[in-house]
Amino acid sequence: MQAATIHHQPRLRHRLPPTTAAPSRRPTSIRMSLRDDGPSLAIVGVTGAVGQEFLSVLSDRDFPYSSIRMLASRRSAGRRFTFEEREYVIEELTPDSFDGVDVALFSAGGSVSRELGPVAAAKGAVVVDNSSAFRMVPGVPLVIPEVNPEAMDGVRIGKGAIVANPNCSTIICLMAATPLHRVAKVTRMVVDTYQAASGAGAAAMEELELQTREVLEGKKPTCKIFSQQYAFNLFSHNSALQSNGYNEEEMKLVNETRKIWSDNDIKVTPTCIRVPVMRAHAESIKLQFEKPLDENTAREILSNAAGLVVIDDRATNSFPTPLKVSNKDDIAVGRIRRDLSMDGDYGLSIFVCGDQIRKGAALNAVQIAEMLL
Amino acid sequence: MQAATIHHQPRLRHRLPPTTAAPSRRPTSIRMSLRDDGPSLAIVGVTGAVGQEFLSVLSDRDFPYSSIRMLASRRSAGRRFTFEEREYVIEELTPDSFDGVDVALFSAGGSVSRELGPVAAAKGAVVVDNSSAFRMVPGVPLVIPEVNPEAMDGVRIGKGAIVANPNCSTIICLMAATPLHRVAKVTRMVVDTYQAASGAGAAAMEELELQTREVLEGKKPTCKIFSQQYAFNLFSHNSALQSNGYNEEEMKLVNETRKIWSDNDIKVTPTCIRVPVMRAHAESIKLQFEKPLDENTAREILSNAAGLVVIDDRATNSFPTPLKVSNKDDIAVGRIRRDLSMDGDYGLSIFVCGDQIRKGAALNAVQIAEMLL
Repeated sequence: MQAATIHHQPRLRHRLPPTTAAPSRRPTSIRMSLRDDGPSLAIVGVTGAVGQEFLSVLSDRDFPYSSIRMLASRRSAGRRFTFEEREYVIEELTPDSFDGVDVALFSAGGSVSRELGPVAAAKGAVVVDNSSAFRMVPGVPLVIPEVNPEAMDGVRIGKGAIVANPNCSTIICLMAATPLHRVAKVTRMVVDTYQAASGAGAAAMEELELQTREVLEGKKPTCKIFSQQYAFNLFSHNSALQSNGYNEEEMKLVNETRKIWSDNDIKVTPTCIRVPVMRAHAESIKLQFEKPLDENTAREILSNAAGLVVIDDRATNSFPTPLKVSNKDDIAVGRIRRDLSMDGDYGLSIFVCGDQIRKGAALNAVQIAEMLL
Repeated sequence: MQAATIHHQPRLRHRLPPTTAAPSRRPTSIRMSLRDDGPSLAIVGVTGAVGQEFLSVLSDRDFPYSSIRMLASRRSAGRRFTFEEREYVIEELTPDSFDGVDVALFSAGGSVSRELGPVAAAKGAVVVDNSSAFRMVPGVPLVIPEVNPEAMDGVRIGKGAIVANPNCSTIICLMAATPLHRVAKVTRMVVDTYQAASGAGAAAMEELELQTREVLEGKKPTCKIFSQQYAFNLFSHNSALQSNGYNEEEMKLVNETRKIWSDNDIKVTPTCIRVPVMRAHAESIKLQFEKPLDENTAREILSNAAGLVVIDDRATNSFPTPLKVSNKDDIAVGRIRRDLSMDGDYGLSIFVCGDQIRKGAALNAVQIAEMLL
């Protein structure tokens, strides 16, 4: 593999002005991963927030590839950009886009996935789909590599398939809950989310930034993506409400947890709220266990779990925040404490933060693709 | 009572530029409430966010008074401002400030309350204290007028006393939970908060605004009130952590609920988080009941409860938000739904928003004072 300095600056990448947020882990000098023996890739929805992050993550992880097709809607077709020192032209997404593709990373919305995911799979590609289109379809693996890698059994390059990437809130929740579940068996979870703008796409992040400027200038905020003011406000998740009073985002947490844990008895009661934060979600999670699990043992378990970092210093009031995990791979967990409303050690309360675009979407999808190598 | 147009613009009042938030209910023309047969008042901490709101609420509610002493630290003494067409000079707070005072509204922090609250009470004033200093002292009434008015029995003008105003999070939570508790008896509450800057005072609101401007301009945010970036971020409440892993703000919710409901068996597990919102808190609350209570009955009960407004339209995704309740008296409740993680009708999930400065502090204190009239 050739080492080279690259200038990875895909266009359309959303950037807020610098903050005190932890800097991206992206190195200034990384190795190119273009190699003849790598799989051929396709990125579907390459101009979106997650599409752009697919490229960053592939670069960061030296994901090997022999070629990449950069696919988007007709509107973006023909635009050029440089990735790992090569110039690419964005191609219009069509059913023919998948000829010869080994792995297709989809993040262009549910309707595109529903239409073209099966086409790509029929042509022999392994589709890793970031939409909700196939998550609950029986037989489609719904995978968090650290949580249920066994769901990938039988999926391999050269044999067309669809693999679903779970919803961001589910991934972030289960990254922290699963290591404890394995030891003490979770019977019920109460999950309250503090969700970032990025979950609604790059345009939502831009709207939050624009609205904030407008409010500070005394102007009426522009509400296009969301129906109400987002700046200096928060609101119940904008997905549709079901007849049971839970919205779709909440039901994803319920149903995806059951599928990923292969446990239809697990009880989950989520409340999903959008807060004016850019790209990392926070979740307050209360776990009830079948077997006792004290907080020190839990902290030890979480400290040793893959993909997790424990930030839990009571003396300095240092706990996970969205900024601490922005542009980071690891999910942060803290506020680990015995649930004082429950008897004995059958309940724990934790607070979890994770980058919504990275582990909540692009990183998890690329990790799934890595399982094929 | 004389009707008059006034220009109530106390100095130091924190104002964000206009937003799409609901306008204040303050009328442009209100009646003066200066009258010889009203009680003599003292406002302790008149330059603070809550102190300023005391004045607004007294005005809005035509609270009768024969005089008002405007009290603050030496730093602010001598400053002048107009309230209800009269000019006032801010006086330095001393033990002598309470001679002849009938009702003293305190909001100048716990140490001021601890030092001068008992002095004022000894001089015959009824102290309504917004700090946490006396809340858990046995014999000191801890009062939400809609919830436990009976705690005020025996407190009257002319007989010195201290009455404690509960913490903002407790008031907002119990305003919504109590009507349901009366019918079905709450046995356990899970409370996750989304708390505004105002709970940390006017300077915290100003810091959030300043930081937001700085971040948008690409500058390093100023962190004086809080130790970390607040703009476009959120963090675990900045109060001190107890040995049980809960912070002081959370333990207030636990302990104050027990005192206000006169129920030492009630189990509460809170997680308190600060979000970048200006002046209204949100709380996601899961209630477990001793007796069954279905969601329609709950909605009916809440619709008829004093001080509450139900905003719960699933078809239009219309629910409470901080902006909808900012500068409003009522607590808003919505997302009323059966807890799908519990069997039968023994669990409900609700989402509540309330103005932290108003019902969470100043309004509740003035309502307590009104019980003395």
